[in-house]
Amino acid sequence: MAMIRVPGFRFAGVACGIKKSKKKDLALIVCERPATAAAIFTTNRFKAAPVLLGMKRMKQGKIQAAVVNSGNANACTGARGMRDAEATCREAGRLLGIDPELVFPSSTGIIGVPLPMENLRDGVRKAVENLAPDNFIQAAEATQTTDKFTKVASAIFRVHGKKMTVAGMAKGAGMIAPNMATMLAYLLTDAAVAPRLLRAALKRTAGKTFNCTTVDGDTSTNDTALLLASGVAENPPIQAGSRQAASFERALFKVMKKLAIKLVEDGEGATKVAEIQVEGAKSSAEAKKVAFAVANSQLVKTAFYGSDPNFGRILAAVGYSGVPINPEKVTLAFDDVLVARGGVGLRSKEREAAKVLARRSFTVKIHLGQGTESASVWTSDLSHDYVRINSAYRT
Amino acid sequence: MAMIRVPGFRFAGVACGIKKSKKKDLALIVCERPATAAAIFTTNRFKAAPVLLGMKRMKQGKIQAAVVNSGNANACTGARGMRDAEATCREAGRLLGIDPELVFPSSTGIIGVPLPMENLRDGVRKAVENLAPDNFIQAAEATQTTDKFTKVASAIFRVHGKKMTVAGMAKGAGMIAPNMATMLAYLLTDAAVAPRLLRAALKRTAGKTFNCTTVDGDTSTNDTALLLASGVAENPPIQAGSRQAASFERALFKVMKKLAIKLVEDGEGATKVAEIQVEGAKSSAEAKKVAFAVANSQLVKTAFYGSDPNFGRILAAVGYSGVPINPEKVTLAFDDVLVARGGVGLRSKEREAAKVLARRSFTVKIHLGQGTESASVWTSDLSHDYVRINSAYRT
Repeated sequence: MAMIRVPGFRFAGVACGIKKSKKKDLALIVCERPATAAAIFTTNRFKAAPVLLGMKRMKQGKIQAAVVNSGNANACTGARGMRDAEATCREAGRLLGIDPELVFPSSTGIIGVPLPMENLRDGVRKAVENLAPDNFIQAAEATQTTDKFTKVASAIFRVHGKKMTVAGMAKGAGMIAPNMATMLAYLLTDAAVAPRLLRAALKRTAGKTFNCTTVDGDTSTNDTALLLASGVAENPPIQAGSRQAASFERALFKVMKKLAIKLVEDGEGATKVAEIQVEGAKSSAEAKKVAFAVANSQLVKTAFYGSDPNFGRILAAVGYSGVPINPEKVTLAFDDVLVARGGVGLRSKEREAAKVLARRSFTVKIHLGQGTESASVWTSDLSHDYVRINSAYRT
Repeated sequence: MAMIRVPGFRFAGVACGIKKSKKKDLALIVCERPATAAAIFTTNRFKAAPVLLGMKRMKQGKIQAAVVNSGNANACTGARGMRDAEATCREAGRLLGIDPELVFPSSTGIIGVPLPMENLRDGVRKAVENLAPDNFIQAAEATQTTDKFTKVASAIFRVHGKKMTVAGMAKGAGMIAPNMATMLAYLLTDAAVAPRLLRAALKRTAGKTFNCTTVDGDTSTNDTALLLASGVAENPPIQAGSRQAASFERALFKVMKKLAIKLVEDGEGATKVAEIQVEGAKSSAEAKKVAFAVANSQLVKTAFYGSDPNFGRILAAVGYSGVPINPEKVTLAFDDVLVARGGVGLRSKEREAAKVLARRSFTVKIHLGQGTESASVWTSDLSHDYVRINSAYRT
């Protein structure tokens, strides 16, 4: 894996015994100065303690450090959970010599068990000792739960001729893994970005990337994406509407899309990734609604697993999406193989269509014939392994 | 299986080669006179030809015969599909000597393949020859696709001291089975019932039974429930608001609830049935919304399969249901074992809770602490067999 560096940031990923496996379970991301920050959080009404505390932290708009533990979600842990999240930030702030209000907490892992605070404190101490600009990958590893591979991405963009970086790490393999929870993402840039643009860019880009993925349709209690702009590039802050803003947002999109697709690829039990592309919709919201109905259908996802070009299941999902489509205008293709036109199946293409679905990744193209708007959603197949992973009694 | 008879009705179930397995695939239900009829249909925008024709038939409110084929859904078959559905009704009408407009069609099975009309005609002819009051079960068998067992139920109620019957048959094992489609139900009574009451009773009762079940959350293109009141009991038609109406509706509820639970029991790959009971909601609509979020969660259903008392997944589903719940007021129990209170898990009960989930059927009790309304939804677990059945390439 290529080395990733983001000027102004240091990283650490250490093991402190929260995971019984002895794998890395505590990550620390530290900026040399308070960074301009934007964040998005789970819409779940059950929010884990670190999410509630993170939301509070965002009010001042500056963050200097993120401390992330894996192996325990600190969710459904009541008042004690909040005290533990606060204590973790306090400890990190003390050891880093910064205000604890500038420390952003995240947790992912088992739900309903109090954080083992002694391990946490030990981990924070070790992580502070290990901070280095080259430890990006180690930090990413320490955020993982059931992930099968480490998900990082970076992109370069130019501001007034000067190269700047956006880099990101993400973890997550089911929206909620076996007893683990969550998608977490940390996005970092050395550019100076106006706070308002930073927030808007994160929200807009998440709507086209992270919020367009599904493994099992379950929304976790801990989902968090944090975007930090250190400004150590010393450019005049990028303002909304400028050419620089467009470059920055393109780079951010590139990184977040890569991470989003990697999250689906690493979906629990996933053997393939499908892009559900809906075109010809009256609005992009309707296109997305249709795409999600297809992407979340258990019957569609099992058909993907079996490489079964079962267009009837896809048309049925389009039909129950809640969007007032006209069946007679719907066409459906797997990559470039047309399988239904005017809502009627073309069974002669079945063999060709099955070949497409046997690929590791493919696009399901749905045209509604009602307008000019579109949306894409990425989903995985539903395999025996998904059931195996998720039905195993927690140990 | 007990013999079921409904005065005024004759039945047949025959094999005519639509199914390669040579199993029964054509059912006929005939009333000795035009019966008062009510029906509900799939809300899917892709409606199979027989559904579209059945909806048309309901305009006059009288039905004398229902012809049902299994093995082919006649869905996504375009204009030809509609012609075939009409021809089937015409043939049945001709052989029975009744107006084809009084014949109600249904189909269930593979999607996107034209009906083999020669087999259909042959089947209708055979069925007409085999009509008998005692062939209720045979007719039920002929409607089945991937069903593992035959689902019938009946109940007695009294009108002015006279015994009357409501009986029903239902088929379905996934909302859409492998390439089969559909839940179909036929409900019959010898009572005379005012048309308006009949329609209202079916709609209300379906809202508490058939529409409170889920196997995979997928809504088929063919779902149909038909309720016929022959009136051969010669009572003055039961009117809305009367004591007789209440007796009739209780009996109908009993039959439809039994059939609904049997549908879930026979859910593809199901090893257990869970009732998701939500109480303490502000409205029954909100209670149902929360119950369905839990009942359709892949993570909850795999946990049921593994007998894993993973309360975190259930609370997470409650949290993302879209209903503005207050986490601190939520309690959760498996049968009588309390596992979470105030949104916080009670892990000491884990062993006892696992024992409940190992049962063939159990109730998940969720109290929202916000009001006095409630709802129940029945769901199956998500097993290896579900994936096996639904990922197998169609043969």
